[in-house]
This record gives sequence, structure tokens and C-alpha cells, in this order.
Amino acid sequence: MDYVYGPGKNHLFVPGPVNLPEPVIRAMNRNNEDYRSPAVPALTKLYLRIVDNELKTGTGAWESALTNTLSPGDRIVTFLIGQFSLLWIDQQQRLKFDVDVVESEWGQGANLDILASKLSSDRSHTIKAICIVHNETATGVTNNLATVRKLIDQFNHPALLLVDGVSSICAIDFRMDEWGIDVALTGSQKALSLPTGMGIVCASPKALEASKTAKSVRVFFDWNDYLKFYKIGTYWPYTPSIQLLYGLRAALDLIFEEGLDNVIARHNRLGKATRLAVEAWGLKNCTQKEEWFSDTVTAVVVPAYIDSAEIVRRAWKRYNLSLGLGLNKVAGKVFRIGHLGNLNELQLLGCLSGVEMILKDVGYPVKLGSGVAAAAAYFQNTIPLIPSRI
Amino acid sequence: MDYVYGPGKNHLFVPGPVNLPEPVIRAMNRNNEDYRSPAVPALTKLYLRIVDNELKTGTGAWESALTNTLSPGDRIVTFLIGQFSLLWIDQQQRLKFDVDVVESEWGQGANLDILASKLSSDRSHTIKAICIVHNETATGVTNNLATVRKLIDQFNHPALLLVDGVSSICAIDFRMDEWGIDVALTGSQKALSLPTGMGIVCASPKALEASKTAKSVRVFFDWNDYLKFYKIGTYWPYTPSIQLLYGLRAALDLIFEEGLDNVIARHNRLGKATRLAVEAWGLKNCTQKEEWFSDTVTAVVVPAYIDSAEIVRRAWKRYNLSLGLGLNKVAGKVFRIGHLGNLNELQLLGCLSGVEMILKDVGYPVKLGSGVAAAAAYFQNTIPLIPSRI
Amino acid sequence: MDYVYGPGKNHLFVPGPVNLPEPVIRAMNRNNEDYRSPAVPALTKLYLRIVDNELKTGTGAWESALTNTLSPGDRIVTFLIGQFSLLWIDQQQRLKFDVDVVESEWGQGANLDILASKLSSDRSHTIKAICIVHNETATGVTNNLATVRKLIDQFNHPALLLVDGVSSICAIDFRMDEWGIDVALTGSQKALSLPTGMGIVCASPKALEASKTAKSVRVFFDWNDYLKFYKIGTYWPYTPSIQLLYGLRAALDLIFEEGLDNVIARHNRLGKATRLAVEAWGLKNCTQKEEWFSDTVTAVVVPAYIDSAEIVRRAWKRYNLSLGLGLNKVAGKVFRIGHLGNLNELQLLGCLSGVEMILKDVGYPVKLGSGVAAAAAYFQNTIPLIPSRI
Amino acid sequence: MDYVYGPGKNHLFVPGPVNLPEPVIRAMNRNNEDYRSPAVPALTKLYLRIVDNELKTGTGAWESALTNTLSPGDRIVTFLIGQFSLLWIDQQQRLKFDVDVVESEWGQGANLDILASKLSSDRSHTIKAICIVHNETATGVTNNLATVRKLIDQFNHPALLLVDGVSSICAIDFRMDEWGIDVALTGSQKALSLPTGMGIVCASPKALEASKTAKSVRVFFDWNDYLKFYKIGTYWPYTPSIQLLYGLRAALDLIFEEGLDNVIARHNRLGKATRLAVEAWGLKNCTQKEEWFSDTVTAVVVPAYIDSAEIVRRAWKRYNLSLGLGLNKVAGKVFRIGHLGNLNELQLLGCLSGVEMILKDVGYPVKLGSGVAAAAAYFQNTIPLIPSRI
Repeated sequence: MDYVYGPGKNHLFVPGPVNLPEPVIRAMNRNNEDYRSPAVPALTKLYLRIVDNELKTGTGAWESALTNTLSPGDRIVTFLIGQFSLLWIDQQQRLKFDVDVVESEWGQGANLDILASKLSSDRSHTIKAICIVHNETATGVTNNLATVRKLIDQFNHPALLLVDGVSSICAIDFRMDEWGIDVALTGSQKALSLPTGMGIVCASPKALEASKTAKSVRVFFDWNDYLKFYKIGTYWPYTPSIQLLYGLRAALDLIFEEGLDNVIARHNRLGKATRLAVEAWGLKNCTQKEEWFSDTVTAVVVPAYIDSAEIVRRAWKRYNLSLGLGLNKVAGKVFRIGHLGNLNELQLLGCLSGVEMILKDVGYPVKLGSGVAAAAAYFQNTIPLIPSRI
Repeated sequence: MDYVYGPGKNHLFVPGPVNLPEPVIRAMNRNNEDYRSPAVPALTKLYLRIVDNELKTGTGAWESALTNTLSPGDRIVTFLIGQFSLLWIDQQQRLKFDVDVVESEWGQGANLDILASKLSSDRSHTIKAICIVHNETATGVTNNLATVRKLIDQFNHPALLLVDGVSSICAIDFRMDEWGIDVALTGSQKALSLPTGMGIVCASPKALEASKTAKSVRVFFDWNDYLKFYKIGTYWPYTPSIQLLYGLRAALDLIFEEGLDNVIARHNRLGKATRLAVEAWGLKNCTQKEEWFSDTVTAVVVPAYIDSAEIVRRAWKRYNLSLGLGLNKVAGKVFRIGHLGNLNELQLLGCLSGVEMILKDVGYPVKLGSGVAAAAAYFQNTIPLIPSRI
Repeated sequence: MDYVYGPGKNHLFVPGPVNLPEPVIRAMNRNNEDYRSPAVPALTKLYLRIVDNELKTGTGAWESALTNTLSPGDRIVTFLIGQFSLLWIDQQQRLKFDVDVVESEWGQGANLDILASKLSSDRSHTIKAICIVHNETATGVTNNLATVRKLIDQFNHPALLLVDGVSSICAIDFRMDEWGIDVALTGSQKALSLPTGMGIVCASPKALEASKTAKSVRVFFDWNDYLKFYKIGTYWPYTPSIQLLYGLRAALDLIFEEGLDNVIARHNRLGKATRLAVEAWGLKNCTQKEEWFSDTVTAVVVPAYIDSAEIVRRAWKRYNLSLGLGLNKVAGKVFRIGHLGNLNELQLLGCLSGVEMILKDVGYPVKLGSGVAAAAAYFQNTIPLIPSRI
Repeated sequence: MDYVYGPGKNHLFVPGPVNLPEPVIRAMNRNNEDYRSPAVPALTKLYLRIVDNELKTGTGAWESALTNTLSPGDRIVTFLIGQFSLLWIDQQQRLKFDVDVVESEWGQGANLDILASKLSSDRSHTIKAICIVHNETATGVTNNLATVRKLIDQFNHPALLLVDGVSSICAIDFRMDEWGIDVALTGSQKALSLPTGMGIVCASPKALEASKTAKSVRVFFDWNDYLKFYKIGTYWPYTPSIQLLYGLRAALDLIFEEGLDNVIARHNRLGKATRLAVEAWGLKNCTQKEEWFSDTVTAVVVPAYIDSAEIVRRAWKRYNLSLGLGLNKVAGKVFRIGHLGNLNELQLLGCLSGVEMILKDVGYPVKLGSGVAAAAAYFQNTIPLIPSRI
């Protein structure tokens, strides 16, 4: 018997880990296999148009990106805009880099004016890398990577561009090559809709070149071990999770069947509808400007007389609904609705309707049905027919 | 890859087969076993406080109930109030009974006044059995079994009372002993929240006695074979589905953990909220009087200018929502929302919100959010905390 | 926690239910679906090159075959050669046919000389059907259907040929058209390697024609209901098990990938190797002549001083091995090794090695390794490379 | 469809990843959950009588053990006896320790005489840690940790004792406290019988104390982050795999139900039987002395005229059997039989019988049945009844 059973489905709306599609659960429902048999390289080869794949969680992927491309003491410019950028910065400092933090108010995006001025004044190219979180999961803020690239190019600066795409890749438009991203990383439990356990790191040729001289100490995360086995054609220096490999294949099959553009459009629909509901409730989005709105997570600001943590607790205790807590600076002030991964519109409407009841429970004078109506009106105009069912 | 894949969960709101809880799916995720090993009787014994258990679908359970208790030519009184009672009557006629049909308009319950007059005039006890569907799934009508029993007792009539509880047992109040039911039957794919494949037939001592002299030809459905193996303690005359046996155990564990009274109360909440939504949309419930309202399925009447089948098609094609068609006499005129089994309130609200969009799609001037608001207002006042999470 | 847990895999060697392949378990690991959605007919259509498919267990399939083609009082010739033919005959009698039983000693095949004489003397064609079990699971006897057909043709007799292929179809050579079989039936839990729950009945045009005039009372098993929905294109008169439908697809995919001829050859290898082991142990095969040897089950005769049921009990209690009991006339005298379904040679060798230890446990002076060596010597000469791995 | 499908079960006898028990597969067959809900700490608490649990693969666990307790430049004594000790030593060197390697011939255990002399002469306590692999998976050698502890105590040496228990813990006798082990580590895919993905690290109070001053750079593997969340009671600094957490619970339930002593005794039986078979085949065990025999893996030396890699290839291609390759120095010279995890005797006998056929295939004059007979004779005398089935 499970712990804390409640009837019906759990409504999982934290911004990761996200709902698993049935075909992924099925694909992972299997015995172990010998990973040295020819079957595993055959399976792995499917994934490897990208340069590098590592089995580890998001936090490990951060470490992989940093230690493989940089040396202790290297100056990096990095942006503090919420809890997850904060944690990455903490790691950068502990890894002994010279961390140049550009801070914004939580709810704002990365301050690219300051980046421009830093790049412009850095004639001697002391900045070795720019580290930026594409989508800050704590505040629902999406940074504009195209602009970051434009600035770097404008000043002809050789700095590496390292991007945390944990809560954006496969959900929000992301262009590794076009935007000149040197290292991009994500985790299996986000938009890929897999269990936790697999970090994916993609490196540009420039990043691979940098890794040859980077002096940071690394073993488990060392790209060289992967590259060595990549060249041999067996791919895995250490035992991979067979289940996650098959799960990844199923997850990618689903994304390809839907079409990546359609996946991104669906996330945009879900994000937009959520924002319309928040507006209808008369509440504020933590994200301060439309240009930063995130299509994977919305952080909702509650009135001062309400503790947002109570909303999250109540969601779980009474409605079998899992929402995201406000973290750190915005603890108690915001709750978060994750709307990423293998999710459809009616699931979101169920969630929004739950949020309305909870708001009423905690004393906020919401008009029941108002947010759902706003979201549904948008959906009713925009949802396409399911192609396989036409 | 599945057929006709659409992103996110399928919203399954047909009145059976219903959603499977994860613990049931897990319990059934197993290899076959030798059903003659001591493990299977040990497992089976758990279920058998009831008299008889048969592995077959609902239609087979009907045949089991009839052929084991009656002989060809026997007079039975039976009620025609919708598609499923009609199918049962068709079977009764093909099995060569003398079928005395009491017909009601679809949307009404069984006409118990006529039953009273038939019983009152049947001094010579030619009526051998009264066959009644507890909950007619086609129209969302629940019959009052307590009244049926009262009438039989009032006239001191010895007729057997055979009840189809397919879409009521484990969801709507049902009292085998108190209401003097002689044979009750249900199917695994309804409120028990299992896959199709198991019919459950419960017989009273009086029914078992009747089976000793019943002359209907039967072999596969013959209770004697089950009773013989029941007495031996191996229980199964034929190979049972190991997976369904373990699934049943998990399903019962969930029902017992929630508490049967709470399960029934939850169905009542889901039914009531659905009816409030229908009212808010300005549509008519197919069920004509409150006394017959069903807590497991609601048949919604659409205006004459709309084809209800188009609603069901659109639900599936655009919203990944499965609704029930109108059947036979009410085809094209009603669509059905099943709200039974392992289901919670936010799931239903997602469905209701989907129905609102579809109504708009097909040209009905619904106010988006109106039904959801009515249902949510009711839920917000009545949903209890989840006991395991307090 | 499971009942009666023992470490490692259970070694399942009863002659059904058999081991499920992982892809089948995975395919069935799913939620319910609306069986009226277009997805289910699309899936069903795949299976239906054969005439008829029914969801029921083996015993139900027997009843289906008989009641749809015959009328009470019809004379049928039928062969009693073991427990399963006995059970079928019991059913034939209870269904009120005029049952003309041809009995053989258990361990022998159907007496076809007597069939010849009955056919030859039946000038007025009183024999309406010949009922024969292709492979008698209780004794490991396979009847020669080609000869049966030859006899019927020789006497130009119009009798229907009804065949129980439960433990032969998909494992032993079976030719519906070439052998002029009118009704063939099997169950999902045998060579198809699915859970129990699906009976499959195939009928010839002649059988379908006969069903139009057959007067046996039937409803649940009535082919007309299936044919009606077959013509409409929705296929299912009653709710099918979605899980079994997907499981069947996976099971057929595996059979087609291996190739049906290779599946049959593999069963022949497994059967032959088992018989060589029995010989090496100095024990007798219950099957009296080579022409009747079964490739799906071997019944092994134990010396009089040993109770074969003790062998089965011990297998389960000490070695996590499930063997088949001796049934009825051969209870205590034989134990059975099932070697059918999705099974390979090393699995069988593990089983044979277990049997050797058990024989020693119960006091039979077996030379450990002797049977395994005989089987392995045969395998080592005959096992092909796995095509997908060459 | 799977890659490289072959009929029947895959016989998985590599020394990890090992076979998953069905209850573990079932327990992991689930959707993601919010790991910040109260359910996850409740579940986690069950596991935490031990000090520290980290989600990472074995190689990561090594890094965790080293970087948390040591500083660059620290002298460590370490033993090179096979491929896995070699890889750990490579890591130690790359992490910039002063690595003092004690090498043995492959097939021998750690040279404890040299350890004694190093400890005896190290008056100034320059040795900060002793790193030893309990069971070297490449050669099937088990080191005697009790003796290691005795030597450290004899010289009153303060060095930490860091133990790789990857292929021993939960299978071979292991006494954290009694043997004064400071850090012990294992991986989920070995004797715990889980998928790859979880490393488990247990630290003594002395190791935790050392971690406060250890200067090795670490972030992802930093124990402090775990200890911080451990104290808060939410346990997980980063997103854990919900599926592995439930799987771990199921795996531990199985071990506790069997009884850890019985699990160890079963591994001893499996190891002993394998060695008897190797002897019967006239082949040499790679492990040179009985005192080092491993109960989890046996490395078998093949005659010079045979390439052991061909044995492994053939096993997979013809018999659906997965054996372990010889690695590095013993590549081509040995093949390995893993006999650890949730495995029983008949499974092993099937494997041994397969090995006999393969040996014959590649031209070694083995007597078929000889090894199986030797193993079975031992088993038949020693296998206990399954307690739940008595």
C-alpha cells in the first residue's frame, strides 16, 4: 500500500518531476540487462546526434558543465534571479571560480544591460564564461538567450556560453546552434517526462576544445571518459540505467510523434492560459514583465495576509493536488503551478479549478470558475485537433 | 507506439470501463502462476465471504444468474427502462423464460406500481423471479430496491429478486441482506476499478436452493462446479486470471482503506456536482425525477439542433476526453458522463470544463466556467480532508 | 508482499498458464480505455483474418463451439483419452447431445479405427459432429488430425470436425484449412503466452452455416452477436479487456518476429529434449507410442512406490518449481512437465535439473545430471543462432 | 519491440546489473511524485538508520567517499588486484592524492603483509586512509576485511578504512561496526537487485568528523548538503528518483522477509556450487586460493587455445545467456559467472548447463552434465525448504 493514499489520480503540478506518459512507464517496466551486450550500444546510438550524454541529476550536470570547461580562478559572469540560479552560483563559488554575480530582483530576468557593459569593458577577455539559467523555475522567468548571444557577438567576446536549460529544453524554444550555446544541460524529470536520474549535457566543439585545457579537478563528471567510450562505440564508461535508456527512447518517440514544434506550441498554450487565469483571479504573476513570462511554470503572488505554503499544503491534503512552494526569498509569498511535460489542457483546467477552491479555503475572495473560464475561452479558440484522430 | 496518441492523460469518463488506480495496475503487472499451487486458494479465500465468484464479463454474469435459478417457461417480471435493461430482457427471452416486461419511458425508473399490482394479483405465485437493474447505465436512473423488497414482502410473495448491480455495487448504497436480494451481480470494470474480465455473482441461500431444481441448461456458468471446488478448497473449476485475482485484492484494499461509506459518499458528491453543472449549463438531465438520480452516471439531454454523438466524437478528437454515447432510443439525444470508480473531484472538474468547451464548439451558447463554478462551489463545501494526510 | 515468496524466479512448468514474455507484460501495463473509441476497432481489425474471436476461458470456448453448431439430441462422436477430453465430454452430455464416446486407455491417442468403423456404418449420417482434443494435456498425447480428416473424406461424411486446440495451437503444427477443421478453439494462457481470460474460436464457413439452424440455447456465447458487430465494424458486443487486446498484439508480434515455423520447431526441440531426459532417468513416458508424443507437455510415470503428487509439492516447496499434477486416473502416478509458450532451452534445462534433485529427494535412484546431459546433447546439436543477434 | 529479441527469458549472469525481482519491478511501475510532499520524507526515514544515502552510480560513490574525507596530497594505501580496484586507483590519482599502490597478481587478494609493514613503519601517521575493494568483481576475489581491521588496530593506526562493497554488501558477510569501517559504499544494481542509479554511502562518525576538515573540492557529492537536509527532515537536497525509492523499499522488504543471514547463506550456496561445476569441467578458477573465493562472482580461466570473449558472444547469440567478459589483463583469458542478487538454484543450474554447451561449441572437451551434476549434488544436500511454503 502506498503512503498517504487518496482516491483518484494525484494531480501533479510541481514544476518537476512531472507526469510520466503511460508509454514511458511501460517502456521502463523491465528487468535489468547486460549493458555490455550489443543491444545497448545499438539503442544508445539513436540518441547520440548530440555530443554527450551523462547519467546524473541536474545538480551533477551543472558540475559537469563547469568543471569540464573551466579552471579554478577563471572569471565567470553569472546571473542571480531566483533560487535555482542562486544554487548554481553557490556551486560556482565552491568550485573556486572568480564569480561575478549580476543580481536582479526576483521576478525579473537577467540584467543584460549590465552584461553588455561588462563585456564592453572586458578588453583583455578575463571573462571566461557566461552562465545563465534559461528558465528560472523559482520565479517563472525566461531569459532571452538570443539577446545574450547578440551581445557576445557585438563585442566579439570569446567567452563560453553555458546554459541551464533544465526547465526549458523540450518545452520552450531553444536553439543550441543558432544561439551559439557552448554547453546546454537538462534533466530527465522535466519536459522530457521521465523519472529523475538522467542529466543530459550537450557541448559545442568550442566547449570540447576548452575541456582539453580546463584544470578543474573532475573524475566522475569527466567528459574524457565518455568521449573515450564514445569513440570505441560502447558509449558507457559506467553502468547506465537500462530502464532510463528505454524510457528515454519512448519519451523521444512521443515528442517526435507530436512534433517538437507542436510540443512547444502546447506549452505556450498552457502557459498563456495559466496567466489568464491568474489575471482573472485578480492575483499578480511573480514575473514582472511579459517578455520574461515562462511557458513551463507560473509563480503566483498571494496577498500579504495569506501564507502561500498553506495553499500548497491544503492542495495536497484536501484535493490531491501537488503545487510548487515559494522558495527562499519568495517563500510564503508565491506558490507555483508547473505546466510542463506530457500534459494536456483538461488536466490544467482541473488544476486551476482546484486552485480556485483552495484560494477560497484560505480566505481569498475569488469568484469560482473565473480563472477556469478565462483559460477555457483561450483554449477553446486555440486547441488543435489531435492529428492521429482526425 | 499506441494508436491515436494524444499528449497527456486520456480523460476517461465513460460509465465503464473506468480508470484503474496505480496500485491496481501495479498489482497486475506480473507473470502467470500455477493456479493449482497453495498460493491461489490462500489468495482466493480472502474474497470469499460472499457465496460465489465467477470469472466472466457482465453479460455472462446475467446468464449465470438466470440459468442457475430458473427453468425454461418460468414467468419473470422484468423492467425495461433503458438499453441495458433491454439487453438483459433480450437474453431472458432467448433463454426461453416467460418474460413479463414492465416498460417505462427512458429517463424514468422501474414502474413499481405495476409491480405491486402484478404481485397482488399473483395469488398462485406464477411469478418465479423479479429481475431489476439497480442502476440503468444508459439513462442514469437508479431504482429503489428497498421499495421493491417492501412490495414483495407486503404480498408475501416467494419470487426471487435478481439484481443487476453492474454500475452500482461499490459506488451506490447496496444492501444484499437487508433488501433480501437473491442474486446480485457486478463486473470488474465498473466501480471496482479493474480491467474487464471478471463478473462477480452473489447468491442468497434461497437462490442456491433454487439452483438445485432449476432446469435451464448450463455448463460454463453452472454454480455447481464452483460450489464443488469451493467445498474442496481449491475454488477454481477452470483457470482463473492470476492477474485479475491480484488486481482484485489491490482494488479491495483501496476500497477498505478509503472505507466503503466514504467511497459511496464520494460518488454522491461527484454525482451531485455533475447535476449542478448540467443545471448551470441550462441543459436537462435525462433522468426525470430526483428520486432516480444516479451517482455513477449522468445522461445529459442536448437541444434538438445538436447531435450528441458529435459531442462525444469532438471530446475524443480535440480534448482527449472519453464520454459515453447515447444508446438506442436516446442515440443522438443524450451524451453521458460516467463518474464512478477510483476518481476524484479535480478529475471531474477537468472533464466538466472540457464539456463546456465542446458545447461551445457545437454551437450551444454555454457560459464557460458556469458548470465548473457550480460544481466547485458544492465541492468546496463538502470535500473532506484526505484522512491519511491530516 | 506476495504470498509464499521464495527468492529468485518461479520456474513455471505447468502446461498452462505459461510464462509471460516481458513485452506482453509491458503491453498490458495500462489504464482502461473507452472500447467504443475508434482506437479499439482499429486494433481489433488486426486480429481478424480469422472468423471469430471471443473473450472467454477455454471451458467457455468449448461451450461456444458446441452450442453454436449443434442442437440438443444431435449425435456426436467424441474421444475419451484423458482428463480434458473427459471434461469436454461431460459438457457435451450436460448440453443434452447424444454423445457417442470412443474410449482409449489413458496414454493412448484417439482410436481412429473405431472412428472409421462408425463412419463407415453411418450411411444415414446420424453423426453430426466429431469432437476431438488435438493435444490431451493430462497425458501428453497428440492426436493425428490429418488422419481424422482423411477418414471423414474417405467415407464422404458430412459431419462437422470440432477441435480443441487449447494446448496445441501456436506450438504444434495445426492446419485449419488443409485438415478441414470446422471449429478450432484455444485459450490465451497456453502457447500464446498471455494471461487467462481470452478464448479464441475459429469457425469454417460450414460451421457458420450450421450455426444458422443449430437449436442449442445460447446467449453469451452466441456467434450471431459477434457477427452482427463484426459486420458493423465495432467488433465487440460486450466490453472486451483492453489489456488483453494489447497483450494479444504484443504476443502475436513476438510470434511473427520469431516466425511461426520456428516457434513450432522450438517446441519440437523442447519436447524431444524432455523425452530424452525422461529416458535417461529410466522413467516411462505416459504416452505409449512415439506417434502420439506431445511437444507441449510430457507426463512422466513414476514407480509405484512414489507418489507423484509429492514430487509436485516438493518442487514448489523447495525449488520454486511449478510442475503439473497427475489428474484423475493418473493422479499420484504421473507428474507433468509443461514445455510450451515463450520458453527457451536453458529454462527447460534448469527445470530438468530440478526434477533430478526432486527424484532423489523422494527416493528414486536417479543419476544427477543424466537427464540434463541427454537433453543438452540434443540441444547443442540443434539450437539455431538467434536471428536478430547474428 | 525490443532490440535483438530472443524467445524466453534472458539468462542474466553478469556480475551486475542483476535480475530484478517482480515485486521490485512492480514497485517502480509508477508515475512521478512531488518529492517535497510529506510522503517522501516518510518513506525515506525508513531507510535511514544508516548515516548517509546518496543518489548516484558506483563510480560517483567512490568519488563521494574520497573527496569528503580526504584532502589533495593525502597519502592513501590502496590495493590493485583487478580491473575495479584499478579504476578506483585511477580516480584516486586524478583526485590528486598521494596514492601508495600495493599490487597483487590478478587472481590473488590484497597483500596484507605489505599493509602490515607499511602500517608498522608509519610512525608519523602519514597514511590518512586505506582503500580496499571488498570483492573484486573482475577476478572473483574477496578480501578479508576482518584481518585489515586487526592490522590497523595492532599498530594503533588512525587511518580511515574506506571500503568498496559494491559487489559484496547484501550478499557476502559485511560488518560495518565490528570491522570498524569508516566509509562503505555500494550500488543499487548489485546484490540489492535494483536498476542502476542509486549509490549508497555509509559513513562512520569518524568519517563524518574527517569530512569537516577534508579539503578536496566537491559540490554534487558534498555530504554537508545531505546532512543539512537530513537535519531538516526533508532528506533530499536534489530531486531523488521516486521510482528507485519505492523500488528500494520493495528490495529491502524482500531481503528482510528472506532474512539477511539466509540471503548470505544462499549466495554461499550459489558460489560453492559454481566452483564445484568449474572443477568438474576441469577448468581453473581465476581466484588462486580458497580463502579468497567469492560468493558473488566466479571468474573461470579457459585453456590458452580458446578466446573467452567468444564464449560470452556465443552465450548471448545462441543461448540468450549473458555472461561477464574478462577485463583488461584477463581479457580473452577468463569469462565470469555472476551469481548474486535475487537468484535461485535452478536459475544457476540452467546457466551452468548453458556454459557446458558453449564450452563444447568452442571446442573444449567437456562432459555435458558434469558441472550441473556436481552443483546439483551439493544443492540437493543443502537447499532449505522455502519457509513461507512449509
